[in-house]
Amino acid sequence: MNISHIEHVGIAVPSLDEAIPFYEKILGLKCFAIEEVADQKVRTAFFQVGQTKIELLEGTSEDSAISKYIAKNGSRGGIQHIAFAMEDGVANALAEAEEKGCALIDKAPRKGAEGLNIAFLHPKSTCGALIELCEDPNK
Amino acid sequence: MNISHIEHVGIAVPSLDEAIPFYEKILGLKCFAIEEVADQKVRTAFFQVGQTKIELLEGTSEDSAISKYIAKNGSRGGIQHIAFAMEDGVANALAEAEEKGCALIDKAPRKGAEGLNIAFLHPKSTCGALIELCEDPNK
Repeated sequence: MNISHIEHVGIAVPSLDEAIPFYEKILGLKCFAIEEVADQKVRTAFFQVGQTKIELLEGTSEDSAISKYIAKNGSRGGIQHIAFAMEDGVANALAEAEEKGCALIDKAPRKGAEGLNIAFLHPKSTCGALIELCEDPNK
Repeated sequence: MNISHIEHVGIAVPSLDEAIPFYEKILGLKCFAIEEVADQKVRTAFFQVGQTKIELLEGTSEDSAISKYIAKNGSRGGIQHIAFAMEDGVANALAEAEEKGCALIDKAPRKGAEGLNIAFLHPKSTCGALIELCEDPNK
């Protein structure tokens, strides 16, 4: 498996409208995109920090993974996942991970925010962290 | 406030001995340092991923912040904090954050792993994420 860099860090927030001003006014970052990902039931806001993006995630439905994360976390936000950019593609990485005994949430790549191909490893095999693998199909 | 990149992502794990093989054998990363930080009651393991390090953290005492995080998280690991590299130093960034109304865990920089000067913002001001600011005093 060949990871080039951290593509993004996914941070769950109760409200994008409250979180974006913190990231812009206190941290001095600039939100460059807001996107709704309907099939994940989230609204996302992106900030570039060096090689890596910060992806803020707000649930748009109580049954979204983000809303469940926040409910479980005492109605507070937190860092929900880390996403690695795969040099040899997500499908190859999933095959290798599974062959080495890693449990998968996604057996095949699917579309995520920004048109990336993405897949999640199962936290029961990662010592707890929610890990996403991704690739930009246009690169 | 001037952030150059994400210095590291801190991931709490129940056991470094169990987690390091996942990061090395499944993800293909290489652990380049293991360090105990006595005053934070943690053992840490570092992996370089592009510009950013992954810092795995294992508590060495039940009253460490990492052990408490894992206990609260159903005895599982998870992504505990994100650390930004500050171009103009941590002390300046803390002063600016406080002046803008951000609550601080650390009022002044202190020493963290790898000899960095570090300080944490208070999650009540960050919409929930635990955010560390850091600088390398030797750069």
